[in-house]
Amino acid sequence: MGWGDLGVFGEPSKETPNLDQMASEGMLFLDFYTANPLCSPSRAALLTGRLPVRNGFYTTNAHARNAYTPQDIVGGIPDSELLLPELLKKAGYTNKIIGKWHLGHRPQFHPMKHGFDEWFGSPNCHFGPFDNRALPNIPVYRDWEMIGRYYEDFKIDLKTGEANLTQIYLQEALDFISKQQASQQPFFLYWAIDATHAPVYASKRFLGTSQRGLYGDAVREIDDSIGKILKHLQKLGISENTFVFFTSDNGAALISAPKQGGSNGRFLCGKQTTFEGGMREPAIAWWPGHIPAGGVSHQLGNVMDLFTTSLSLAGLQPPSDRQIDGIDLLPAILQGKLIDRPIFYYRGNEMMAVRVGLYKAHYWTWSNSWEEYSKGIDFCPGQNVSGVTTHTQEEHTSLPLLFHLGRDPGEKYPLSFASDEYQRAMEQISVIVRQHKATMVPGEPQLNVCDKAVMNWSPPGCEKLGKCLKQPKSDPKKCIWPH
Amino acid sequence: MGWGDLGVFGEPSKETPNLDQMASEGMLFLDFYTANPLCSPSRAALLTGRLPVRNGFYTTNAHARNAYTPQDIVGGIPDSELLLPELLKKAGYTNKIIGKWHLGHRPQFHPMKHGFDEWFGSPNCHFGPFDNRALPNIPVYRDWEMIGRYYEDFKIDLKTGEANLTQIYLQEALDFISKQQASQQPFFLYWAIDATHAPVYASKRFLGTSQRGLYGDAVREIDDSIGKILKHLQKLGISENTFVFFTSDNGAALISAPKQGGSNGRFLCGKQTTFEGGMREPAIAWWPGHIPAGGVSHQLGNVMDLFTTSLSLAGLQPPSDRQIDGIDLLPAILQGKLIDRPIFYYRGNEMMAVRVGLYKAHYWTWSNSWEEYSKGIDFCPGQNVSGVTTHTQEEHTSLPLLFHLGRDPGEKYPLSFASDEYQRAMEQISVIVRQHKATMVPGEPQLNVCDKAVMNWSPPGCEKLGKCLKQPKSDPKKCIWPH
Repeated sequence: MGWGDLGVFGEPSKETPNLDQMASEGMLFLDFYTANPLCSPSRAALLTGRLPVRNGFYTTNAHARNAYTPQDIVGGIPDSELLLPELLKKAGYTNKIIGKWHLGHRPQFHPMKHGFDEWFGSPNCHFGPFDNRALPNIPVYRDWEMIGRYYEDFKIDLKTGEANLTQIYLQEALDFISKQQASQQPFFLYWAIDATHAPVYASKRFLGTSQRGLYGDAVREIDDSIGKILKHLQKLGISENTFVFFTSDNGAALISAPKQGGSNGRFLCGKQTTFEGGMREPAIAWWPGHIPAGGVSHQLGNVMDLFTTSLSLAGLQPPSDRQIDGIDLLPAILQGKLIDRPIFYYRGNEMMAVRVGLYKAHYWTWSNSWEEYSKGIDFCPGQNVSGVTTHTQEEHTSLPLLFHLGRDPGEKYPLSFASDEYQRAMEQISVIVRQHKATMVPGEPQLNVCDKAVMNWSPPGCEKLGKCLKQPKSDPKKCIWPH
Repeated sequence: MGWGDLGVFGEPSKETPNLDQMASEGMLFLDFYTANPLCSPSRAALLTGRLPVRNGFYTTNAHARNAYTPQDIVGGIPDSELLLPELLKKAGYTNKIIGKWHLGHRPQFHPMKHGFDEWFGSPNCHFGPFDNRALPNIPVYRDWEMIGRYYEDFKIDLKTGEANLTQIYLQEALDFISKQQASQQPFFLYWAIDATHAPVYASKRFLGTSQRGLYGDAVREIDDSIGKILKHLQKLGISENTFVFFTSDNGAALISAPKQGGSNGRFLCGKQTTFEGGMREPAIAWWPGHIPAGGVSHQLGNVMDLFTTSLSLAGLQPPSDRQIDGIDLLPAILQGKLIDRPIFYYRGNEMMAVRVGLYKAHYWTWSNSWEEYSKGIDFCPGQNVSGVTTHTQEEHTSLPLLFHLGRDPGEKYPLSFASDEYQRAMEQISVIVRQHKATMVPGEPQLNVCDKAVMNWSPPGCEKLGKCLKQPKSDPKKCIWPH
């Protein structure tokens, strides 16, 4: 989902009454970012509080490449990483993930080995249908075992876009919340729904109801579900004890537009890029009785902050034996403070850009390669900013391209290198970047090796269902990441 | 000002708390249009309820050209046109215009000859400073006479952007409202401020206060002033008897970006064009106790509707002896109804496009000429949609380019000519366009002839001020309209 997909962020159809109301009852973040322009690394960052380049969710196979966790990926979340649910357990929390895990699907990466007590969902994207020979269909797990596969047991109709998944995920969430409330146990629910990821889907009740087509139908169903979750918390009388945060793991995938792609508002480009459209996200914090209703924050925030903020809410400290990139947002949320901090925009192993205050400096620019572009792959459809949305990797490390995101949120007008403003801003930014690079210890890259043998051929539980598939011989290779 | 300039429409700095609150107390229009992508014709349409091609605010000097009322224009609003204030007088209204008139500056076009009882402001844009030899500085009028000139008596500092004009206009408005309330007389106030028109200005208190630079400062001052006007109405106890509507006369002028140009959100291009960025406008209706708070309307609206709606509010009928394009919006505003009607997008004498429901068909496309574009004049900076943002006038009358504005508000993905959807939509649209063209009686074009002799050399009142200038010999010529 992109920054511009909610009514409260200016989507012209304004079809998200529940999220808009969530914002009017809570706090809207206008300058909130994800940690990466792609899903898996962002989710790893959310749960570890650390940049993907630290927690291993990146590749060194080629320069500045977006890598993720498809079925043939060998890597996943290292045991050495401490995930939010692992830490929350110490404070007595019960942790559940509903939806897409995406931090590795081999046994050692299973979410319940990393602090979750319950899981309902899938390890990978809901791509398919596959033939179960060259590619197995993605399994859906309940806790330790698979209970079926997408397209076989959990239908997605690619023609009509119909699928009941968001409704299933919603019911899982409501049931979990009810159970926790009944047992008076604190909980962490990671509701990682994926209806707006291509192939986009919605259930029958929502199909055809949006001005925006199928993508809008999916957004409306998510919006409706979030409204139901918030009302459920209120009905159970625990809304004032429950901190809820809504955001997304990358900008809208404009490559899927107009049928399956969303909106990044007036920001440049989308998913896969380190322009604002790729990484600035819709974000709303909700906690009735604590967060002043109708609040608006310009705090530079990041999904990694949800790690530190959640620990803070639980009365826990973040780990002190490693670099944590997330900050505690509670002073911003509860007291309206503005905490000075940079935002780093990475693509794989490269820091492409950095934001400091209202300035954003691009050290590298790239949309995608000419080779891909000529095949019709375009991460910036209809947008073309000369020297900025480049189709070759352009290095600007000695003289970064600098934008003022207040006057120019669309990153169209680089400041003149000769201006005083450029000099002053870059002096400040250079120090921050130097320090960041000097102290950076990259983790072991997890997204370098691919092997068909590690696919979801025979997930645990497949025997009971008669759904075990024949695993091919192991043949590890360097993964190819074209973007 | 553009659609995307208000927080409530997704401006990322969200610096318009008063307009946002006006929307939350009133009704937000998401699909509201101006009558023309340029100022004078839109204002003529607002006050006559008629398309510029009917009321004469267009040119036939060249095909599909944007024309307006600079100082050397010979034409203006014809006496045969019935303006809103003329009609409101019949219902006992006192009418005042504050700010930019723009419907002609020669004596016969004076606003008080067309129904206004009071005027404070200027006949033309606040361009300048001029040398009073080749070009006279623009006069500022109080009622029948000039009281000074811009840059001489009404300062605008082009270096700092400082000018006190919005504050003066605000005080004029507050005083007028107080006077009317005291005399218990109904009033029509046309508050036609122009701080966001280049050269953009703001008063000292607002300079440097916006994240968005000078343009944002101007927006903040307008926002602040509107807050004060609404509060004034409430304080005087007449808010429930006063219908207030906020909108703009054209999209943000992207040509002036990033320093003096605003935002059209995610819409394509800006002022001067018939893409959504040029003509879709922010719009808010406010009338406490009558309009349900927090309402949102998808009614296709147009500034011309304010003519008919205002008459309706005053218990008057629109003239029946001529074609009126504006419709009465009260059923949409008060009862949430959706009235079926098309939106026509004109550029000069040409109907470039039409919107019917969520479909928009372009019969002609043009951004601006290659000749102008190569000089750096760009109405679509950073945007380039192949075959759409063309630099030659492209005719599509036999096979219009069709967009679905719900799925594709950015006009990037024309529907396939071969699709059923195209066929179905165009069948409906063609009927509407045929009927529109068959019954169109263009008015006498007012914006064809330019003459230096008609400039503001010696406006009424200049003698008292010693500000009469020498008028050159008359030399009427065809005006050149490059866009």
